[in-house]
Amino acid sequence: MSILDKINSSNDIKKLNSADLVPLCGEIRQFLIDNVSKTGGHLASNLGTVELTVALHRVYDSSKDRIIFDVGHQSYTHKIISGRRDSFSTLRQHDGLSGFPKPYESDDDAFIAGHASSSVSTALGMAKARSIRKENYDVVAVIGDGAATGGLALEGIENAAACGEPLVIILNDNKMSISENVGGFAKMLQRMRVRPAYLNFKQKYRRVMSRTPLLYEMTHNMKELVKAKLIHDNVFSEMGFHYMGPIDGHDVGLLEQCIRWARDTRMPVLLHTVTVKGKGYKPAEEHPDIFHGVGAFDALTGAVKASDRDYSAVFGETLCALAGKNGNVCALTAAMADGTGLHTFAEMYPKRFFDVGICEGHAVSMAGGMAKQGLIPVFAVYSSFLQRGFDMLIQDISLLKLHAVFAVDRAGLVGNDGETHHGVFDVGYLRTVPGMTVLCPASFAELSAMLELAVNELDGPVAVRYPRGGEGEYKGLSLEAECVLSEGGDISLVGYGQHINEIIKAAALLREKGIAAEVIKLGCLTGECYEKTLASVKKTGRLIVAEECAEPGCLGRCIMSEIALKGYTPLRAELVNLGSGIVKQGTVKELYKDTGLDAQSIALRAEKLVRGDR
Amino acid sequence: MSILDKINSSNDIKKLNSADLVPLCGEIRQFLIDNVSKTGGHLASNLGTVELTVALHRVYDSSKDRIIFDVGHQSYTHKIISGRRDSFSTLRQHDGLSGFPKPYESDDDAFIAGHASSSVSTALGMAKARSIRKENYDVVAVIGDGAATGGLALEGIENAAACGEPLVIILNDNKMSISENVGGFAKMLQRMRVRPAYLNFKQKYRRVMSRTPLLYEMTHNMKELVKAKLIHDNVFSEMGFHYMGPIDGHDVGLLEQCIRWARDTRMPVLLHTVTVKGKGYKPAEEHPDIFHGVGAFDALTGAVKASDRDYSAVFGETLCALAGKNGNVCALTAAMADGTGLHTFAEMYPKRFFDVGICEGHAVSMAGGMAKQGLIPVFAVYSSFLQRGFDMLIQDISLLKLHAVFAVDRAGLVGNDGETHHGVFDVGYLRTVPGMTVLCPASFAELSAMLELAVNELDGPVAVRYPRGGEGEYKGLSLEAECVLSEGGDISLVGYGQHINEIIKAAALLREKGIAAEVIKLGCLTGECYEKTLASVKKTGRLIVAEECAEPGCLGRCIMSEIALKGYTPLRAELVNLGSGIVKQGTVKELYKDTGLDAQSIALRAEKLVRGDR
Repeated sequence: MSILDKINSSNDIKKLNSADLVPLCGEIRQFLIDNVSKTGGHLASNLGTVELTVALHRVYDSSKDRIIFDVGHQSYTHKIISGRRDSFSTLRQHDGLSGFPKPYESDDDAFIAGHASSSVSTALGMAKARSIRKENYDVVAVIGDGAATGGLALEGIENAAACGEPLVIILNDNKMSISENVGGFAKMLQRMRVRPAYLNFKQKYRRVMSRTPLLYEMTHNMKELVKAKLIHDNVFSEMGFHYMGPIDGHDVGLLEQCIRWARDTRMPVLLHTVTVKGKGYKPAEEHPDIFHGVGAFDALTGAVKASDRDYSAVFGETLCALAGKNGNVCALTAAMADGTGLHTFAEMYPKRFFDVGICEGHAVSMAGGMAKQGLIPVFAVYSSFLQRGFDMLIQDISLLKLHAVFAVDRAGLVGNDGETHHGVFDVGYLRTVPGMTVLCPASFAELSAMLELAVNELDGPVAVRYPRGGEGEYKGLSLEAECVLSEGGDISLVGYGQHINEIIKAAALLREKGIAAEVIKLGCLTGECYEKTLASVKKTGRLIVAEECAEPGCLGRCIMSEIALKGYTPLRAELVNLGSGIVKQGTVKELYKDTGLDAQSIALRAEKLVRGDR
Repeated sequence: MSILDKINSSNDIKKLNSADLVPLCGEIRQFLIDNVSKTGGHLASNLGTVELTVALHRVYDSSKDRIIFDVGHQSYTHKIISGRRDSFSTLRQHDGLSGFPKPYESDDDAFIAGHASSSVSTALGMAKARSIRKENYDVVAVIGDGAATGGLALEGIENAAACGEPLVIILNDNKMSISENVGGFAKMLQRMRVRPAYLNFKQKYRRVMSRTPLLYEMTHNMKELVKAKLIHDNVFSEMGFHYMGPIDGHDVGLLEQCIRWARDTRMPVLLHTVTVKGKGYKPAEEHPDIFHGVGAFDALTGAVKASDRDYSAVFGETLCALAGKNGNVCALTAAMADGTGLHTFAEMYPKRFFDVGICEGHAVSMAGGMAKQGLIPVFAVYSSFLQRGFDMLIQDISLLKLHAVFAVDRAGLVGNDGETHHGVFDVGYLRTVPGMTVLCPASFAELSAMLELAVNELDGPVAVRYPRGGEGEYKGLSLEAECVLSEGGDISLVGYGQHINEIIKAAALLREKGIAAEVIKLGCLTGECYEKTLASVKKTGRLIVAEECAEPGCLGRCIMSEIALKGYTPLRAELVNLGSGIVKQGTVKELYKDTGLDAQSIALRAEKLVRGDR
């Protein structure tokens, strides 16, 4: 029986002898590699935080203490330790374990996570709740140096620093976010790492002082003096944190000791740990970017299956071509050069490529300044992450009608990352931005053409939204706002983007049953004209608008209201969408089925509408 | 003729003798007091930046160099200097000068502003544009220490620091945002202010070195050593900025010299100036909070007219009462304790009151942590500023269905602050947040009752949205989602919130013409039921939905689509709203008229609909 087999809860790990911890970490590491090589997932960050997580569970009880993992993709070891080892093979699968912390999955998951940089804020809220409600538990946030560069994290850190509330923030410094870190914050951390070790002094000092509280009081000033000599000021201590570190984030014993000290300080403490992303698995140590979020791979060799050509790749290629013809075209990314397909652009046009770190809001405002002074900025960003830039889109782009392009990747359902990552709100929030044109390609050819249109032809802000993954059977090219893909007199089926493939399939299923569906693909989601759709509806008298989008802000509402405003006669219609927009994980195919957006479900609804028995 | 009379452009100020600058600043200060006492406006921050702005115009040419004022309410002196002295009496009035920078008003206004913390990002974008396009101008951002605590500013600063692009950031440190500053960043600045003066050394060093470039090269290392001794590290220099300061922000000569040096450094420079908010006008120096944004006042005595009881006051009183009965109720504000009516709460319940600084995103995420652990957080925030927390509302509140309350102040048109401040998008973006209940009181009594409902009765996230200012003639109390205020068979008029008063008036005007309008007030903007509205429409066959809201995300679309989905027979209907949502400044009454939302316009449209000649 391995050591890991004995660990079924946070508390089991506390019963182990210290000597068992290093072998346990080895077992966990192997367990991670074995499993993630089959399920896919965030391997490198989890390999980097094995010792840290084990140490956390030695000190804290995750069933009552609140451990907040920032972003949360590094919570695998936590899940394995806190009773979910046996279901770990279902990781990221439909109805399986989530790849992120989920309080509905286990009380040991203190909070939801998925977007970066929020952990300090939520941890501070929890710590305050504990004090106000006079309860007794500890709160600790674990945040990577990448996520710590986000403005939200900095807001949280400065607020936590000032309030004096007992709270531990563990800065997991691996010199990476998803790719290599950028920006002044990274520079600053780099300098901290080479400073003379403060820890030894602190350790001895504390050992003596904890036994003699009066002496502690008396020597406080002296201590401050010595401390000033030893650690210099840094931003954390200047803001009011008790700063500890940097320490080796793979020394599980040291980690346990330091976390315990940090906890017992009863102050805001920042514990700076230095870890290696991918630690202990050579392929991941060498290519932490590839093994950040990875599909199934060969555990022995680390061979990763080459991914098929996808929308992101097409975007990247097209933008390179456009930049080649126009020296004003620039690309921005928020720490997602690979994910958004911009790696080649970065190599070809380094001076016009800007990786701003995990700072979506800044990227939008910076694009505003660039556009005002004559550049054509193209910010490639995941749909759900661009939510961070909503205000900046309105204030710093739209009010001045600036020509900036937003390449909104991962629009629609993204699959295994689940509810925090689906891009199901952008249709609503992008359309809210005054003057924004929203284009939605349904094929690679359309993405290329629409991006060119957005960059070279259109004015004002333009969003081009496209999904994760590759194209479907539809490989057409239409730049029309509305395009009738197939004619039919019985019912009008309207949709857009990659999901049009399901609608085309639905029409084929209906055809088999003798029902002629007219399929209309929307290429532009703004403008509210819908001439062809209205004409079609006038002809068929029946309408289904199906979309991979939350109901508020969906296009179905717009189309229906246009129909009503134009005074069209009675009509049998249904809107098919994602309701509130909270959709769990699974393959896109599974999720279509869950939500009634698959071809079969659409066809069934259409048939009922046509037969009159809905 | 005064000195100020000779200044008609940024360049005129460069022709003055240095000796004229101090008297000029005095004249500008008096001009500001004379004018703002009549027009109202942001007095204190402008009095604090007279010397800084004069110095900026001595060094830069605002017609080509780009001066970015963060928030922008401190741009009055800039406007006076850059050719708008004569129209300054129209400040903040309908069709008059804007109280914020507006490029459409003058090319000297480099960028739009209104929301805090974006200046460094846009300035960096502009500086990059200059370099990429090989153009020749300078870029400078002016940011207050309050705005600098915002996450967006910190993102901008760390990114600007790392990129090495020539760019000057002037940190206008007045130890205040709107009220006193909070947080670790403020603590840090406080420490910097007392450090030994670095400036003298720098000044002499530079004077010698500028004449001997080779020597400069050679002594670089020595310089670094000396510098390290003189200024210690601070967060700005650690991140890669060339830090200068702190210097006296009211010494116009010193400012000019330092800004010139900063510009000529051709690096990212942060110049730290210390100013006094309200400088030179005793009432404003003593009460910078009152004179931050002020109405007309007595210039001689500084006597400010007491404001009438408004929605914010009613909110504050009600929340105090609720907190008295329930120890879990907490209040959060993002540097707006006075504006949101929370000053009394802050005094009565200091341990349950959280001013987090200008950090709306953090406030939302922190509220998430508080709610998860059993508190009932109430975040009072202006509608347009909550846009910064859009992603956090979805991720950190709604996905866990947490019970947090958002008191959305300044919902609807706000008047003289103009397009950056109107709360005309919240109906759309709040309804997008999964599970959010959006309540909209139309009277003080309804605000109290709905807030109590939100805090004590409802589950999940709840927003209560209410406008700037006081209530109108409607003083009723209904908690119904739909409430029929008056019956009529000719047309249904639907609206909500404070604007219902215009609709009631429109119904009265129609009555005079023999048209019976049924007035329906919506109290809850979510839920999509509209039973009474549909019944009314069935009866009248005509509908106008009028709302103080941008068209995308407006309720009219939802209501019309419900009508169409339910298959109602032909209907004559119109939606009246704010279109794209970009509405300039003016009194709310003037803006209602501009946008067709006043009683007369609504009555006229209704009459046309009823007469059948629309």
